[in-house]
Amino acid sequence: MASTGPFVPGTSVRVAGAPSGPLAGLTFAAKDLFDVAGHPTGGGNPDWAKQHPVPAKHAWAVQRLLDAGATLIGKTITDEVSLGILGENPFEGTALNPKAPDRVPGGSSSGSASAVAQGLCDTALGTDTGGSVRVPASFCGLYGIRPTHGRLDLTGMLPQAPSADTTGWFARDAATFARVSAVMLGESLAAGLPLRLVIAVDAFGFADPETAAALQPMVKKLSTLVRDVREDLLAPPGLSVWGKAQTTLQRHEAWLTFRDWIERDNPRMQFSVARNLALSTTVSESERQWAALMRMEARARLAWLLPPGTALCMPTTPCPAPKKGLPLPTLDPLRSRILCLAAHGGLTGVPQITIPGAEVDGVPVGLSILGGRGSDAALIAVANALAGCAP
Amino acid sequence: MASTGPFVPGTSVRVAGAPSGPLAGLTFAAKDLFDVAGHPTGGGNPDWAKQHPVPAKHAWAVQRLLDAGATLIGKTITDEVSLGILGENPFEGTALNPKAPDRVPGGSSSGSASAVAQGLCDTALGTDTGGSVRVPASFCGLYGIRPTHGRLDLTGMLPQAPSADTTGWFARDAATFARVSAVMLGESLAAGLPLRLVIAVDAFGFADPETAAALQPMVKKLSTLVRDVREDLLAPPGLSVWGKAQTTLQRHEAWLTFRDWIERDNPRMQFSVARNLALSTTVSESERQWAALMRMEARARLAWLLPPGTALCMPTTPCPAPKKGLPLPTLDPLRSRILCLAAHGGLTGVPQITIPGAEVDGVPVGLSILGGRGSDAALIAVANALAGCAP
Repeated sequence: MASTGPFVPGTSVRVAGAPSGPLAGLTFAAKDLFDVAGHPTGGGNPDWAKQHPVPAKHAWAVQRLLDAGATLIGKTITDEVSLGILGENPFEGTALNPKAPDRVPGGSSSGSASAVAQGLCDTALGTDTGGSVRVPASFCGLYGIRPTHGRLDLTGMLPQAPSADTTGWFARDAATFARVSAVMLGESLAAGLPLRLVIAVDAFGFADPETAAALQPMVKKLSTLVRDVREDLLAPPGLSVWGKAQTTLQRHEAWLTFRDWIERDNPRMQFSVARNLALSTTVSESERQWAALMRMEARARLAWLLPPGTALCMPTTPCPAPKKGLPLPTLDPLRSRILCLAAHGGLTGVPQITIPGAEVDGVPVGLSILGGRGSDAALIAVANALAGCAP
Repeated sequence: MASTGPFVPGTSVRVAGAPSGPLAGLTFAAKDLFDVAGHPTGGGNPDWAKQHPVPAKHAWAVQRLLDAGATLIGKTITDEVSLGILGENPFEGTALNPKAPDRVPGGSSSGSASAVAQGLCDTALGTDTGGSVRVPASFCGLYGIRPTHGRLDLTGMLPQAPSADTTGWFARDAATFARVSAVMLGESLAAGLPLRLVIAVDAFGFADPETAAALQPMVKKLSTLVRDVREDLLAPPGLSVWGKAQTTLQRHEAWLTFRDWIERDNPRMQFSVARNLALSTTVSESERQWAALMRMEARARLAWLLPPGTALCMPTTPCPAPKKGLPLPTLDPLRSRILCLAAHGGLTGVPQITIPGAEVDGVPVGLSILGGRGSDAALIAVANALAGCAP
């Protein structure tokens, strides 16, 4: 399938920002999960908007950027109701990955990443439940953030799995990323940098060797910014075990979120989206209970690993963007592997940024930096410092 | 959702029949699972036709009717790749049930039944794997047949579960039904009628009391045509047990049929269609083996119950057509119940006709007559006799 524009087909949305403010002059796009007053929230599925009222108010995140002076220029394609990690939406098309036109943009915030990567706007809102900002940022060579879970107001954002849902955003450069982040977080950026860096050796081992090797120069550069550097495991039980726990919890919550709609409307969906929801209903209560216990352990692990002043780095994705149109037997294991490397986000709620980390055969892949809960601004400062910007 | 025309939206198909022949002057429509040379076979799914070549030859059944002088006037809506029993296709619409405009037409041969019931053509081709001709015939007040499995050439008909797939057809009146059946079966109608009639008391007990009661006058009329009438069980293990066996086997075969397409294209589907295919992959081999054994027992039961000269009667569906747009938690058990009463067809392959049997609150419901394998023409003769037509 040929790539398409990043905006939802048939929509035209423009809302001018406040005349002055810290983001005056910037433009942004919003994933079609965010309410924009007077426009249907499409959710990436042709049957979603029809069954839901047109919002009368902007989502909190949209209003926040407008109030700061940024102008909304469009609503962007998303995987259906945020259930997808690759960005191949069969109803609205696959948004172009300008860094690799024959590859997927990543999802589910595919159109937002695509719009920023193409230079059509300065920043864009996405959502990240299981990796939906981090993965497209990595695949499109962008800065992206999944903030601390629970920190931002999610009013007017279509939910998926509330215990893991977050609002994130993208930028092409560190300066814009910092400027937007200060507004969204409502916090001026930290002046100091972390003192300690943990290199997650299990996560680097989980990535393709070429990806892990390509990221080493950026890891070295990051290491020079801190006092202590050590190697440790992110997930001692296994990234695949954390992945299984997160997938179990997230799909069950997603089913609870979308069940009323699905049972009432029996909507059209991409086969794999419907399949994953249907199969989630076959998971036993005891498996979900185990997953909830593993989540507790993961939270304890990251609290211990990431005390104040400590950051952790890891590959955002195990590989660059895969080609478009791969068959399910190839895609499914790949998708699972990508989700394993992102599972700690939804499981533990710690903040994570991803920065353009390297290129593998000319195609981008991101390096991620994590911190303890609430350390979002400190992570932005690290991105700034790596780019040589003043805090 | 408002009802739509019975023909596939955006298509226009007309192929003149042979200038003379036993069906000269008649018109017919073909379910969009039958190949018509030069036109894509849509299969009721927007992603099916795109991935399959436009056929160069007519399906055997289409050619058969054309050769006999009937003219093809259109291709009709079907549930997606014949996976559905109600006829609510979210991509192409729900074909009108003219006898009950607020109710479903039944499926999967929904458009064919609708076109005949509306008087837009004299007959129409459908397919019946688990009830896809019998159910819409019952719901739309038509004559319909599921012939002996394996009797007709299925070349050019999109398969679903080959061990149960059949080609069937509809008509509004017994005379046309007989005329078309003689051509399709390649056999002149039997002069004699069955000697014995079995009234399937379990099947009547499985129907709504109002439906069972409404069908009694037609059962009485049928009883007067035969020498001996007795009551017996169709399915001693339970119609629900036969239903479970048939569903298990049919869905597994359907998955094998459509798996390559689904895995390659990850197509758009109605949630419930994708769900049922996905859940079929979780059925264990031992459950499928049990279902195969139950099929053997069901075949033996019908061979014993239906020796030459014996017919069996039962309600075609447990109730008239349900309302359109019911939510899945209401539809799913109803769908299962409808399928239980049709399961013997796919399980055993015996022929079955359904005739306009009665009305319940002004809405039609069919009476079915079954015979032993190969007795198709004898069943048509019964329909003729009931309608007072000469054989």
